[in-house]
Amino acid sequence: MLQFIENGSISSVQGIKAAGINCGIKKQKKDLSLIYSDVPCNAAGTFTLNKVIAAPLVISKEIITKKKKVRAILVNSGNANACTGETGLANAVKMQQYCAEKLGLQHDEVIISSTGVIGQQLPMQNLLAGIDTISGAVDYCKGNDAAEAIMTTDKKKKSFAVKVRLLKGEVVIGGICKGSGMIMPNMATMLAFLATDASIEQALLQELLSEAVNESFNKISVDGETSTNDMVVLIENGKSGLKINKNSKDYEIFKSALTTICREMAKSIASDGEGATKLITISINKAKTRKDADVIARAIANSPLFKTAMNGNDANWGRILSAAGNSGADFVPEKVTIKFDELSILKPNYTNGFNEEEAKKILSKDNVTVSLDLNEGEESSTWWTCDFSEEYIKINANYRT
Amino acid sequence: MLQFIENGSISSVQGIKAAGINCGIKKQKKDLSLIYSDVPCNAAGTFTLNKVIAAPLVISKEIITKKKKVRAILVNSGNANACTGETGLANAVKMQQYCAEKLGLQHDEVIISSTGVIGQQLPMQNLLAGIDTISGAVDYCKGNDAAEAIMTTDKKKKSFAVKVRLLKGEVVIGGICKGSGMIMPNMATMLAFLATDASIEQALLQELLSEAVNESFNKISVDGETSTNDMVVLIENGKSGLKINKNSKDYEIFKSALTTICREMAKSIASDGEGATKLITISINKAKTRKDADVIARAIANSPLFKTAMNGNDANWGRILSAAGNSGADFVPEKVTIKFDELSILKPNYTNGFNEEEAKKILSKDNVTVSLDLNEGEESSTWWTCDFSEEYIKINANYRT
Repeated sequence: MLQFIENGSISSVQGIKAAGINCGIKKQKKDLSLIYSDVPCNAAGTFTLNKVIAAPLVISKEIITKKKKVRAILVNSGNANACTGETGLANAVKMQQYCAEKLGLQHDEVIISSTGVIGQQLPMQNLLAGIDTISGAVDYCKGNDAAEAIMTTDKKKKSFAVKVRLLKGEVVIGGICKGSGMIMPNMATMLAFLATDASIEQALLQELLSEAVNESFNKISVDGETSTNDMVVLIENGKSGLKINKNSKDYEIFKSALTTICREMAKSIASDGEGATKLITISINKAKTRKDADVIARAIANSPLFKTAMNGNDANWGRILSAAGNSGADFVPEKVTIKFDELSILKPNYTNGFNEEEAKKILSKDNVTVSLDLNEGEESSTWWTCDFSEEYIKINANYRT
Repeated sequence: MLQFIENGSISSVQGIKAAGINCGIKKQKKDLSLIYSDVPCNAAGTFTLNKVIAAPLVISKEIITKKKKVRAILVNSGNANACTGETGLANAVKMQQYCAEKLGLQHDEVIISSTGVIGQQLPMQNLLAGIDTISGAVDYCKGNDAAEAIMTTDKKKKSFAVKVRLLKGEVVIGGICKGSGMIMPNMATMLAFLATDASIEQALLQELLSEAVNESFNKISVDGETSTNDMVVLIENGKSGLKINKNSKDYEIFKSALTTICREMAKSIASDGEGATKLITISINKAKTRKDADVIARAIANSPLFKTAMNGNDANWGRILSAAGNSGADFVPEKVTIKFDELSILKPNYTNGFNEEEAKKILSKDNVTVSLDLNEGEESSTWWTCDFSEEYIKINANYRT
């Protein structure tokens, strides 16, 4: 029912054009991205919970809150336009208005977004000239350029699309996203933009997105930080002619597909976390409550001592248990079992006797699953994180310079 | 009224002997420490809040809870005796009983403590032989040896003593402690042992210690981790003949002195955090509530992005504000001002225009104060932390090997 499209992107969705260019915010790398829909779209969004909210989010949140129809998403990287005061807000308004004008749209049909350094004003001359160029450059095959242009310290561009077979035909969901520091649930300097050619009413679109985000982007952590600029936006243009109604079979299929693509996007962000050498899946099972499973997974995903041990391929299960013990969750440490992939590391009553070499071999892979069974109940939660390397420090010690 | 004693230690307190030796848990470094009081002492303690509690803490907590008189504190480093099940508990009991026997005491007159690797059994033969040796080695001048023997990844031994002038004479408070990973409020792999020759009833002693710990050890963070083994213990032997009564002038003097020595001990732990190159004081002022000040200070002290920027001497104030924004505290970001020592970095409405070179110069020191004024009220909180360096990763990626 669901198939990933090779080299797919947001422009794999019918009627969605995109582009990515350099406009001079960064020296050479692409730094300006535009997603454009041929027709008006319903739009849903989730935004950072940080009290410090960047200027573009103030504007874009209002569009979503007022349930406006949307035609374009304009994103710059290299400058977050956060903590920039009234000048920053005026620049964000200008950025939106100028782009709308160039595309022949109303200003509130354009969602805007920024990512990069905090506390510096946008170089408006470069940006406006960039908007001149990019508004003429959008095309049906340039989703990957758009994905490239929203990157900051990401090493890989992140672009995805899935075909979804519904009862009476096929729809596509496409998306682009970026990480890779300040990644932490409830958004992070994490941007994700998705589009679909299914037809979905705004309220339902928002519900679908919120649920999918909770099971994906809100379960990854690179460093426990949440940024001022995070947002996930999903737009629909109905081009497929297929409508998704609540409580239908198609609704279930679409919801599952949306969650799947969001999870793949989220995992791509975790595995490309700053300095990361591997993707770590934290799977907590047999918890008394869902919340217990969730806070333990989160505590482990955020533990610097666990993440550094993973970097050293060190089967230091004591740190895993210690992180769980700090989480506040209700469980009995003596009942816990731990596995790395299929290798049993810890059995009840702290019984351990695994082969260190075998454990090291598993941890040396670029994709490892750490599972804990609490043996308290039936609830589960899965999170994704990465290891913590010297490279993370190098990247972040001198980010501005 | 208060004077630090040069090269002072826990054995600077009258009637307190100490020793530190190698008993073979570690290869060569000292790994066994004994503090011994000539007379019975009241004892107070605070312990880890981690749900995973090491075996020695189970035993030592009970002594404090039952308000037993104490004569000795035995501590080993190199092995935490945590997550070691029934064998671990039996070993802890044996360790306590054997030490009591050698010293001619009841088993519950001996507090025990362990720090080091989690999940391995203590090498009991070495340990018991060590107890044979150390029980004959305690002396009135060996507090610094004891301080050395409780170190794990600490680079410097941590030993302090203060003379406190009361209305009718002088008392001494002496202490030793260790860090240096998993440091986080509500204790961390942080051990601190203090003694005083003042005479103080157990209930008051516990109250004094709890309050002092809240203002010192509970306000430091190296990596946001809390260990399975943390404890702070304070014993009094009354040797000075001076009694501290609640609500007296002496009580205020003693309380302030105890808080001061605990703060110095806590700061010595933060500044010697794993891989740390500097001590960072986070001072939050003019908050609406004490709690707001506290959660912001804590959020900044724990932020990897802030701590890596400090490592790179990068005046990245956006990360400071972003961490504050994530803390959950009630404040208006636009009203915040930030200083590094006396240099103004940010004024209200995100106004900044500081000299980058000057900021770099301040941040390059090994002792920096970052102050935020929220301009919301009159409450304050101060925390201490360190920077986050590549060295931290190196130390922790291969801790067990």
